[in-house]
Amino acid sequence: MDNRQLTELLNQMTLEEKIAQLLQLTANFHEGGESQITGPLEEMGITESMVTASGSVLGLSGAQSVIDVQKSYLSKSRLGIPLMFMADVVHGFKTIFPIPLAIGCSWDTELAEKSAEIAARESAVSGIHVTFAPMVDLVRDPRWGRVMETTGEDPYLNSLFARAFVRGYQGGSLKDEPERLAACVKHFAAYGAPEGGRDYNTVNMSERNLREQYLPAYKAALDEGCEMVMTSFNTVDGIPATGNEKLMRGILRDEWGFDGVLISDWASIREMIAHGAAEDDGEAAYRAIRAGVDIEMMTPCYVQHLPGLIESGRVDEALVDEAVLRILRLKDKLGLFDNPLRGADPEREREVLFCQEHRNVSYELAARSSVLLKNEGGLLPLASGKKVALIGPFAQSDDILGWWSCVGVKEDAVKLGTALQERLAEGQLVIAEGSGVVSVEQSQIDAAITAAQDADVIVLALGEDSAMSGEGGSRTNIRLPEAQLELVRQLKKTGKPMAAVIFNGRPLDLHGIIDEADAVLEAWFPGSEGGAAIADILIGRVNPSARLTMSFPHSVGQIPVYYNHYNTGRPMNPDKTEERYVSKYIDSPNDPLLPFGYGLSYTTFEYGELKLSGNEITANQPLQVSVSVTNTGDRAGIETVQLYIRDVAGEVVRPMRELKGFVRLELAPGESADAVFTITEEQLRYHHSDLTQASDPGTFQVFVGPNSRDTLAESFRLV
Amino acid sequence: MDNRQLTELLNQMTLEEKIAQLLQLTANFHEGGESQITGPLEEMGITESMVTASGSVLGLSGAQSVIDVQKSYLSKSRLGIPLMFMADVVHGFKTIFPIPLAIGCSWDTELAEKSAEIAARESAVSGIHVTFAPMVDLVRDPRWGRVMETTGEDPYLNSLFARAFVRGYQGGSLKDEPERLAACVKHFAAYGAPEGGRDYNTVNMSERNLREQYLPAYKAALDEGCEMVMTSFNTVDGIPATGNEKLMRGILRDEWGFDGVLISDWASIREMIAHGAAEDDGEAAYRAIRAGVDIEMMTPCYVQHLPGLIESGRVDEALVDEAVLRILRLKDKLGLFDNPLRGADPEREREVLFCQEHRNVSYELAARSSVLLKNEGGLLPLASGKKVALIGPFAQSDDILGWWSCVGVKEDAVKLGTALQERLAEGQLVIAEGSGVVSVEQSQIDAAITAAQDADVIVLALGEDSAMSGEGGSRTNIRLPEAQLELVRQLKKTGKPMAAVIFNGRPLDLHGIIDEADAVLEAWFPGSEGGAAIADILIGRVNPSARLTMSFPHSVGQIPVYYNHYNTGRPMNPDKTEERYVSKYIDSPNDPLLPFGYGLSYTTFEYGELKLSGNEITANQPLQVSVSVTNTGDRAGIETVQLYIRDVAGEVVRPMRELKGFVRLELAPGESADAVFTITEEQLRYHHSDLTQASDPGTFQVFVGPNSRDTLAESFRLV
Repeated sequence: MDNRQLTELLNQMTLEEKIAQLLQLTANFHEGGESQITGPLEEMGITESMVTASGSVLGLSGAQSVIDVQKSYLSKSRLGIPLMFMADVVHGFKTIFPIPLAIGCSWDTELAEKSAEIAARESAVSGIHVTFAPMVDLVRDPRWGRVMETTGEDPYLNSLFARAFVRGYQGGSLKDEPERLAACVKHFAAYGAPEGGRDYNTVNMSERNLREQYLPAYKAALDEGCEMVMTSFNTVDGIPATGNEKLMRGILRDEWGFDGVLISDWASIREMIAHGAAEDDGEAAYRAIRAGVDIEMMTPCYVQHLPGLIESGRVDEALVDEAVLRILRLKDKLGLFDNPLRGADPEREREVLFCQEHRNVSYELAARSSVLLKNEGGLLPLASGKKVALIGPFAQSDDILGWWSCVGVKEDAVKLGTALQERLAEGQLVIAEGSGVVSVEQSQIDAAITAAQDADVIVLALGEDSAMSGEGGSRTNIRLPEAQLELVRQLKKTGKPMAAVIFNGRPLDLHGIIDEADAVLEAWFPGSEGGAAIADILIGRVNPSARLTMSFPHSVGQIPVYYNHYNTGRPMNPDKTEERYVSKYIDSPNDPLLPFGYGLSYTTFEYGELKLSGNEITANQPLQVSVSVTNTGDRAGIETVQLYIRDVAGEVVRPMRELKGFVRLELAPGESADAVFTITEEQLRYHHSDLTQASDPGTFQVFVGPNSRDTLAESFRLV
Repeated sequence: MDNRQLTELLNQMTLEEKIAQLLQLTANFHEGGESQITGPLEEMGITESMVTASGSVLGLSGAQSVIDVQKSYLSKSRLGIPLMFMADVVHGFKTIFPIPLAIGCSWDTELAEKSAEIAARESAVSGIHVTFAPMVDLVRDPRWGRVMETTGEDPYLNSLFARAFVRGYQGGSLKDEPERLAACVKHFAAYGAPEGGRDYNTVNMSERNLREQYLPAYKAALDEGCEMVMTSFNTVDGIPATGNEKLMRGILRDEWGFDGVLISDWASIREMIAHGAAEDDGEAAYRAIRAGVDIEMMTPCYVQHLPGLIESGRVDEALVDEAVLRILRLKDKLGLFDNPLRGADPEREREVLFCQEHRNVSYELAARSSVLLKNEGGLLPLASGKKVALIGPFAQSDDILGWWSCVGVKEDAVKLGTALQERLAEGQLVIAEGSGVVSVEQSQIDAAITAAQDADVIVLALGEDSAMSGEGGSRTNIRLPEAQLELVRQLKKTGKPMAAVIFNGRPLDLHGIIDEADAVLEAWFPGSEGGAAIADILIGRVNPSARLTMSFPHSVGQIPVYYNHYNTGRPMNPDKTEERYVSKYIDSPNDPLLPFGYGLSYTTFEYGELKLSGNEITANQPLQVSVSVTNTGDRAGIETVQLYIRDVAGEVVRPMRELKGFVRLELAPGESADAVFTITEEQLRYHHSDLTQASDPGTFQVFVGPNSRDTLAESFRLV
């Protein structure tokens, strides 16, 4: 339908019908018989007719269920406007991929895109139209539980992944490709910066910082054509995002020109009352509709109060019309007016969900996401023929999907122990639990020691259970539970070499692990095929290549620690750490335990000289930076060569390093290749104090290397 | 001199003489023979003539030294413009008062004022004209070392103390009262909010938050007539404060109308290069003079580069003239043109420094600053006649003055052990060191246990040494050192009742102390008379009355934790702490271990009903809030009754509680008194999103109680 037709449809709608389009309820309101939902309906003060006319459904999937609900809904619908079905498809639908924090560590946007395409296909054939993804919140605080949903601490990298996910979900045309989903980027804005890392907590930053660090990834998703945006739970400069006119009308709609659908997060309109930004539901509705929120998720402020607000003249009905039109337009884009059942197809559903092809991609992504953090003496890969004791609560755990694993089931996950068993010879592997995730009995440790004593090498399988991160999973302690640290201490006494595999959803304080074990592999929550991928890394079938996208702190007391920090006026001289009046802690390094971009390989890479095509750059004359990289080891491997830039003096202080590019070189043993980067003036622009973006003439430093710390350096001038 | 005379003087000055007025060097440049200073002079690239003409001196004191330097300086001065002598007199000069964080806990602004008056007297007779105090930086992060210099986390309380200190230092007239000092409020602005609590680190907040929380105390000092302002080391929204035009010209000078002297912090003009806000000294000078910084401390950017900047036309000489005029005006206000030696007087110096009268005030303030945090079973005061084992590294430590103790010497400090010895009977006290501050030997513990076994009660004297806080003293671990926790654990096994006295400079994670000891007294660094005051509290001669002005966190992982936080949209229901999707940690309470305003007494107080004079308030009609408080114990005591307000719904979200007033009631046993507060519309104003200050009609909650947690509540409406 074109705009005229959509407007005509709008004009046929009663005010009640329009406002009902703005309401999103969970499936039980639609699925259940009347008796089932009377309770919640009454509690929420909404009527059956509001449900009947409501515009979208949250969380329902399964092709047949969706078909049934859609048909029943349309049979009661006066104007035949189909429902939209939306769900949180975050890192896979039935085939579960590694958590986004892990996906980020692959630095492989093509694989990320592929994972989103697969998630879209599985979801779409199950009847879903919209996914509440990608989540692109930048995070600098590992205490926050939802850190597992982000791709990390860097605005540039997050932006690339935001685009990749949107491409993967949406494809080229939602109408022509019924096995794609509309994407909904979230959580706008800065949800990833809650104070103290406590979920839903206050966010406090300057607008300049917001624009520089936090907004780019949302903007990137929209530049890629992302159809929807979700508001965040937090306040942005003291005003809840969901009622924040400056943010939503000002930046999102007016400045960025976003005319897609803006949805609240779960109950976040009503939550303005708890925030203290509205005294009642009516005021909450007022602020949200004025801010430009189109769909209200799971609270009835709109349906109950917009009629009165319009009648009293406080809210212009045009605001509602706008919102409805945007919703109708999305339904049209999805092709729902032509085919309200769209991709929902029980047969395709049986065919594609968790199919081998999808599992293969999940495997591939898990293999590319696990970060080798330490490998002393080349303990990994495990030498063939050695006896292995696999010990720890994750040895045979299927809790490796991570939070938000949609309809994925743990029982489908490939466990590490099972996978290793398949790969090792009879009698080569012994498995012991060693401890629970948070508790331990001496008998468990004793059994583990016995197992270890008979082995040549210990593989520790440690971690956080999936509920220790994810939404509502914030922690003040970011070490592994004491039970597991105790297990490691006791096993250390056996003198056997130890390789630790860690399953978890956040950067951890790894002291107690990384200083005890000879090798450490950060496996994150690796998804459905996790055990297989990790086992293949352990035995050397896969050479790890992932790189951290968040700094790992030395301790929780060091938070926040992130690579793109400012220098301060009194940076510590690394050769004079005893100086007192410098910016440092007296009891801890400033630097993280492991820096952004860090990750090892089973092979080694050598960097040649850093070459610049000149020492000046102008608005029209870019600069080429190149370095030759050689695989100096004895196996093929992937090196992620990273480019960082520092503006030495700016009107506003610039970060010590900012990632501006990277290339992934796949090199055979002995092979060399050039990593070549082009630096343009545009890349040197930043937000000045007046919020305009421009570059400053002057000196710049350029750094190239395998991570944000160990780099070659040169400089040039912008003239 | 009037303005005309000062301008005439200015007009006689050469450009070099003017710029030299803007230079501040340490005393060694003036005191030493030429040979002594050639090195530093050359290193800084400044000439002897610049020193000869420089406008002020940093850190020199001692009446005779100052007189000598002033006379010698004037003998070489073409125009006879006297030097100003400035120093960091922060919590006392020779008589050292408790650290400011402790002074804040007294909630006694009169005593605070008195302490500043004494510090001024001792300094002024020793030749000083200006103190770099008060430091009024609001702090929410106990990791920061300089937290000891602040009065805490509350803008209202900090403002009251800012005013009190300024009154105390400056008195009524600097010219008529030569034993007062000009005050210099610092560090403008927001130095107390470094990221990660790491000194000098980046500050990131919105302007609204800056204005609401951080600026009020600086403003209060200026409203009280504070003569000078010092810039802070940190960036403010990405621009170093020292070169921040918006902050200095915009807010400080244009908006607030401050026309006093603005001084850089030590080297902070040149540090703009390290910050990355200037490529060289010239650019740093350019940014600082444009921002309105008058005096450059300890770097030569002005003297070396202002001539060229003026010659090239980049800097208008009028900017220098303005700065010089402000400096001359301050010299005139101090009466230096009439008497360049001002208060400097070797005889008075001998008379007043560390005199008994001054020490008495220090004693009084220490007694009023120590906060009783726990007193199970009324262990304190110590029952008379009981045998006491005083154990711990602070039992006989004189390291109780704290950082920035000026010319105070530890040897003058009254030690706790000595003071207790004087107060207890022969044989009633045994003292053991137990451990060092950071190290312990089993033999020390054994000796302590032996001492304890023979006693009825253990008094632990624990703490941080003074270098563990203060400038450059930031820590990631805010527990007492493990050595002392181990000592406590071992002593606990004796089964003896334990009262812990803690000497330190920051809010600590007290786990390991507060859960082991029956009583805990937070003594802070109590100053010259600390031991006497603490001993008198222990034996009951003094009834403690202090209240915390910073929240004490459960752990470093909970930081920041402060009382005037927002509610969030998903506050935790204290009766349903198991709910997942609320703003909480899954491994820690949200609330602090000890809340703002908290502190116990040896007596008990009972609150009557909270009474409001009405349930509405208007612009012209204030509201009275009152509560009757009764001393229900058996000894006289002081109750600090606190008034908090919450605006239930604002255009911008308002804190859960904001301190709006308090009264200190001194009550005899059985005595009652009313705490009466008047709430006006003005008190309900806050910074809206457009940065204007206004109140919003609607519901307000009012809370009254002995701390920010345990309060009576009522509500009213603003109409």
